[in-house]
Amino acid sequence: MNIVKVNTSSHYEVKIGSGLLASIGQEVAAVTKSKITAIVSDTNVWPLYGDIVSNSLKNAGFAVVSYVFEAGESSKSGTTYLDLLSFLAKEHITRTDCIIALGGGVVGDLSGFVAATYLRGIPYVQVPTTLLAAVDSSVGGKTAIDLDCGKNLVGAFYQPKLVLCDTDTLNTLPKDVFQDGCAEVIKYGVLYDAALFSHLQEKGLDFDRESVITRCVELKRDTVTADEFDTGCRMKLNLGHTIGHGIELLSSYEISHGKAVAAGMALVSRAAQHYGLCSAEDTAAIIDTLTLFGLPTQVNYSPEMLYESALSDKKRAGNLVHLIVPRAIGNCEIRQTPTQELEAFIKAGF
Amino acid sequence: MNIVKVNTSSHYEVKIGSGLLASIGQEVAAVTKSKITAIVSDTNVWPLYGDIVSNSLKNAGFAVVSYVFEAGESSKSGTTYLDLLSFLAKEHITRTDCIIALGGGVVGDLSGFVAATYLRGIPYVQVPTTLLAAVDSSVGGKTAIDLDCGKNLVGAFYQPKLVLCDTDTLNTLPKDVFQDGCAEVIKYGVLYDAALFSHLQEKGLDFDRESVITRCVELKRDTVTADEFDTGCRMKLNLGHTIGHGIELLSSYEISHGKAVAAGMALVSRAAQHYGLCSAEDTAAIIDTLTLFGLPTQVNYSPEMLYESALSDKKRAGNLVHLIVPRAIGNCEIRQTPTQELEAFIKAGF
Repeated sequence: MNIVKVNTSSHYEVKIGSGLLASIGQEVAAVTKSKITAIVSDTNVWPLYGDIVSNSLKNAGFAVVSYVFEAGESSKSGTTYLDLLSFLAKEHITRTDCIIALGGGVVGDLSGFVAATYLRGIPYVQVPTTLLAAVDSSVGGKTAIDLDCGKNLVGAFYQPKLVLCDTDTLNTLPKDVFQDGCAEVIKYGVLYDAALFSHLQEKGLDFDRESVITRCVELKRDTVTADEFDTGCRMKLNLGHTIGHGIELLSSYEISHGKAVAAGMALVSRAAQHYGLCSAEDTAAIIDTLTLFGLPTQVNYSPEMLYESALSDKKRAGNLVHLIVPRAIGNCEIRQTPTQELEAFIKAGF
Repeated sequence: MNIVKVNTSSHYEVKIGSGLLASIGQEVAAVTKSKITAIVSDTNVWPLYGDIVSNSLKNAGFAVVSYVFEAGESSKSGTTYLDLLSFLAKEHITRTDCIIALGGGVVGDLSGFVAATYLRGIPYVQVPTTLLAAVDSSVGGKTAIDLDCGKNLVGAFYQPKLVLCDTDTLNTLPKDVFQDGCAEVIKYGVLYDAALFSHLQEKGLDFDRESVITRCVELKRDTVTADEFDTGCRMKLNLGHTIGHGIELLSSYEISHGKAVAAGMALVSRAAQHYGLCSAEDTAAIIDTLTLFGLPTQVNYSPEMLYESALSDKKRAGNLVHLIVPRAIGNCEIRQTPTQELEAFIKAGF
C-alpha cells in the first residue's frame, strides 16, 4: 500500500493498494467521530462492493445506511442532489456523521457536494472504484453537480477526511471505463512528467497500476496544494477539458468524460503544433499514445459547434478563456485566450 | 452612514444608513470586477426597489439581469435554488460577475447559497431590506435553503463582498415584518448587551434604527469573527432558535422566524428560571420586552411536539443538543444537553 499525504486547508491521506475495502471500517473510525455512516453508491458499484464495505463499517461499530442511485452521468443532477439531501435529513444524519462515497466520479462528485452543503458541511470519505476517480476526481476537493446547460456548473471546494483507493476494484471495470481513466493518466504525463509518459507509451494498458495511480495522485496533490481554489496553476489540470466539456455537452453525455478529454487534448495539441507552440514530434507522441490506449483523437462536431459549446464552460472569466496548451511532453502552459479567438484556435486543431 | 468592518476569511464592510440604494452602482464597482450584475429579489421587494437598484447599477456601467421569485419562506427551496442556478448559466454569468441579493432573509440566504455554489463560488453583495436581514442573516456568511423536513438544512459558509443596508427600506416594511426583526434585536441584548436591552425596554418599537442596527451588526461581527464556522461561541446566536426552528416547522412556516424565535427565547428563559439558572426578574424582563414589541411568548404546541420537531435541528451533534440559556440580561451560556433531557427542559419552559 502507498500513502500520499495531502495538506490543503484540511489534511488527509490517500491510501492506494490491493484489498483496502475490507478494512474501511477501521480506516473511517480513525478519521471521524461518526456514529452513522451513510454509504452513497450507484447501481453498478453497490452490487459488487456494497456488502464488503457495509460489513466492514458495521464490524467497526458504525450504524450504516445506504443510498443507491441509477448509474450514469445523468444522475449527477440537481434532482439526485436534493433527493440525497432529503434522505440524509430523514435518517437524522448529524454534523459528526460521515458520508462514504463508494464509486466513480459521479458518485464522488455528487456525494462530495452533498457532504459540503448538508448542514453546511459534514465529513466524507472518498472510495474511488474507477481509474478516473482514483487519479482525478477523488483528490483535490472539487465537488460538483451538472446543470442541463453544462457539466460541473454547481459545486464547492470541500476536502474529504480520507481517500481509500482499493486497486482490486479496477479488475471489475469494463475495459471501456478503464480506458476513460487512462485519458487522465496520459494527461498527467503530458502536463508534468515525461518519465510517466514514457512508461505509458511502453506498457500501454498494462501499466503498473499501484505506482502509476500513486504518481498521478502525487502530481495532483502537488497542484492542488499550490492552488487549492483553482485561481492559478491548478487550471492546468484542465488540459483537454475546455473542449472536452463542450464535446460531452454536445453529445448529451453519450461521449464519456475520458474520451471527450482525450479528443480535446488531441485537438489542443494539434492546434499547439499549428501555432508553433509544440513540436510535431511531441504532438504525434500525444496522438499516438491516446490511440494506443484506444482513445479518440477526433470528433464528429464542427469547429463552430465546439466553439459555441465550449463558451458555456465555467473556466471562462468575462471574455477570456483559459486554454491549457502543450509546449512539450511534461510541459504545458495556461494561455488566456479572448473568446473571439477561440473559434480559430479550435479550427486549427482539426 | 455607519460602517462596520468584518474580518473573516474574507474582509468586507457593512454600510448602514439612509439613502444608500441610490449609490449601489458605485459601491459594487468598488468591490468587484464584474461586467454583469444579477439582481435576485422577490415579488414584494422588486416592485419597490428594483428600478432604483437597476438604474444605479446600469449608470455605473454594469449590464443588469434580474431574477424575481414569489415572496415567502416556501421559495427558499431546492426548486428555486436549481431554477436560479439554471438562470445564471443561461445568462452566461461567469466567475467574475456578481449577484446582488435585494430583499430579506429568504432572498439573502438563497442568493448567498447560489453565489457560494454556482461555478463553485462567485461574488455577491447583500442588500437587506428587512430588519431581520439587516441585523442577522446578511452578516456572517451563513447561507442556506430549506428541505421539506427542516429549515436551513442545506447551505454553505460564504462571505459577501459588501453588505449595503439602506435604513429607508425599513419604512415600507409591514409592522408585522418589522416586529419579526425586533425578536433578533432583543436577542442581541439578552445575549451580550444590557445597555442595548435597556434602550429597547425604554423606546419599544421607536428605537433608533441606524444606531441599533449598527450595534447588532457589531455584536454579530464580533461573534462570527471569533468563530466563523460555527463550532463554538457562534452557537450563542441560536438563542431561541432550537425551539424556534421546531415551531416554524410544526406550523409549516405559517409562524414567522422572528415570532418563532421570540417564543423559543421566552420558553428557554422560563426553563432557565425553573432550573435556577436565571433570576425571576431577568426572565420577566425578557418576557415583558418581547410583549412590548408585540411578539409571542407562548405557543399552542405541546412539549412533546416541540421536542420531536426540535430533534431535526441541525445543531444536534450525535445525541447532544446545544441549548443557549440566559443566565442574566447580557449573559447567556451554551449547555450541551443530552437529547433525552431536552423534553423535560421544554416542559419546564411552559
